[in-house]
Amino acid sequence: MAPCRIALVSRLSDAAEAGWLARLRTLLPGERIDSLRALDAAACAEVEIAVVANPDPADIARLPNLCWIHSLWAGVERIVAELPDLAVPLVRLVDPELARTMAEAVLAWTLYLFRDMPAYATSQRAHRWQQLDYRRPEAVTVGILGLGELGRAAAGRLNAAGFRVCGWNRSARAVEGVECHSGPGGLTHVLGQSDIAVCLLPLTAETRHLLNAERLALLPRGAQLINFARGPIVDTQALTHALDAGAMKHAVLDVFETEPLPAPSPLWDHPAITVLPHISAPTDPETAAAIVAGNIGRYRAEGVLPATVDLRRGY
Amino acid sequence: MAPCRIALVSRLSDAAEAGWLARLRTLLPGERIDSLRALDAAACAEVEIAVVANPDPADIARLPNLCWIHSLWAGVERIVAELPDLAVPLVRLVDPELARTMAEAVLAWTLYLFRDMPAYATSQRAHRWQQLDYRRPEAVTVGILGLGELGRAAAGRLNAAGFRVCGWNRSARAVEGVECHSGPGGLTHVLGQSDIAVCLLPLTAETRHLLNAERLALLPRGAQLINFARGPIVDTQALTHALDAGAMKHAVLDVFETEPLPAPSPLWDHPAITVLPHISAPTDPETAAAIVAGNIGRYRAEGVLPATVDLRRGY
Repeated sequence: MAPCRIALVSRLSDAAEAGWLARLRTLLPGERIDSLRALDAAACAEVEIAVVANPDPADIARLPNLCWIHSLWAGVERIVAELPDLAVPLVRLVDPELARTMAEAVLAWTLYLFRDMPAYATSQRAHRWQQLDYRRPEAVTVGILGLGELGRAAAGRLNAAGFRVCGWNRSARAVEGVECHSGPGGLTHVLGQSDIAVCLLPLTAETRHLLNAERLALLPRGAQLINFARGPIVDTQALTHALDAGAMKHAVLDVFETEPLPAPSPLWDHPAITVLPHISAPTDPETAAAIVAGNIGRYRAEGVLPATVDLRRGY
Repeated sequence: MAPCRIALVSRLSDAAEAGWLARLRTLLPGERIDSLRALDAAACAEVEIAVVANPDPADIARLPNLCWIHSLWAGVERIVAELPDLAVPLVRLVDPELARTMAEAVLAWTLYLFRDMPAYATSQRAHRWQQLDYRRPEAVTVGILGLGELGRAAAGRLNAAGFRVCGWNRSARAVEGVECHSGPGGLTHVLGQSDIAVCLLPLTAETRHLLNAERLALLPRGAQLINFARGPIVDTQALTHALDAGAMKHAVLDVFETEPLPAPSPLWDHPAITVLPHISAPTDPETAAAIVAGNIGRYRAEGVLPATVDLRRGY
């Protein structure tokens, strides 16, 4: 079989691209895999598959005979937004290791909030020895927004840790040990009982600013929020108002409208916000490259694509 | 049966004593239970059982006909040290809920260190967006010092979270999923591989300053320490030297030589130390009162005491 031309199209550093190229070439030795940066117009015309990480839309337009695109990331809302007329199938990364790492992060930062680590850090800075009341995890409800692969994995870890877990999903889902709700009324119900709300939703037209002032006001007094999904799902101004007013206690934000979070952003200094640099579930280059290479190999051997992104739905 | 006179002997606040008295009186309605503060010499002479929380030795000496003592806390090293000539049996609190809470704390603060929360807090204060490399939990060894009830419960939670777990105990123990070692050589072996060392030992003459400069130097470079046991087990000066030299990365200290930690202590401001106010496993007044009342009830009905503290061993 003649080699297939595959282009890596990204806004990553040259060094990061080199790492991905080396992994993919090792796993797919029969194919021609290059960075788009190394290809002239004639070579571009031969590219059948684009492996992308935050691609520039103008770069995708340089590939006239493209058959399909494989994203190295799980989140593809930016590609969907920037390439509204995309005419070829888009495959996103679905990595079980990503779900494990995300579930671990959800457990870690839920325990961070549950065991009052932010308040104890404040006490330490003030040289203040102050013991706070302990509640058992059974007395705390964690509401998971988004019961896809990540949300279901997180629910399992939280259940095992003794928390009461409820969850919301756009379409109805059943998850063992989780009180599941769906639709707009279901969201009201889940937010109303979530002492800790964990956002794991995809970013779509429907979820943009889903957590606005009105919906944050549904949370119990003193509720806490973890956003490990996408920044624009939360109305940041509404969140800071709720924190400033004492209606909410603390938020852990790993994602932002603009990333990296600009240095002048007031979020950095907000005493009730923990800022993380988008690290809840880093892509593991080893497992991710193996999954991408496996998908490309099956396509080449059998002509089949894995499940592709529904561009209208956005994930 | 004539009521038995029971005295609560503590250095707690009046309000805290009132809470314990209310719980114990509800659970043991047939007995006479009072604070020592309310008893005159004649009443003191009638006291058979002392329920104690950090008692003043002079107060214990006021009870000439005492038969036995029940500690409301699990840690009794202070009573043992302050009452070296104690002639009556001493029972300490053994509460399964305490082991659960401690195991939860060990998991929570192990994840805190493992997921680099201290470093991300430092980055946040500097408005710095910096992603750190992620290692899987399988690549991290947690060494548990002390495989009693608390250590075994903690090991189970850490195993379930994917960490490699090893453990050390004075006398040999076997714990499922844990590479167990004992004796002085075993301690060297466990410290040598502990990326995160968790101290859950009782404080005794043998464990005082067990973690001195020499033993801390056995830890792998960049190791981290959690002390949820007793302050004097760690040589604080040796620890701060190891942190300052970069040999160790971070320490979470919940216990100190003097508690509350005095406001002028330099530990409060050490950038590589997380100071907690002895909150890893707070006594749950509900479950603790029920256990103490159950032990007293069985003594009164059947004349039997639960396992008592070995005063020479110290726990």
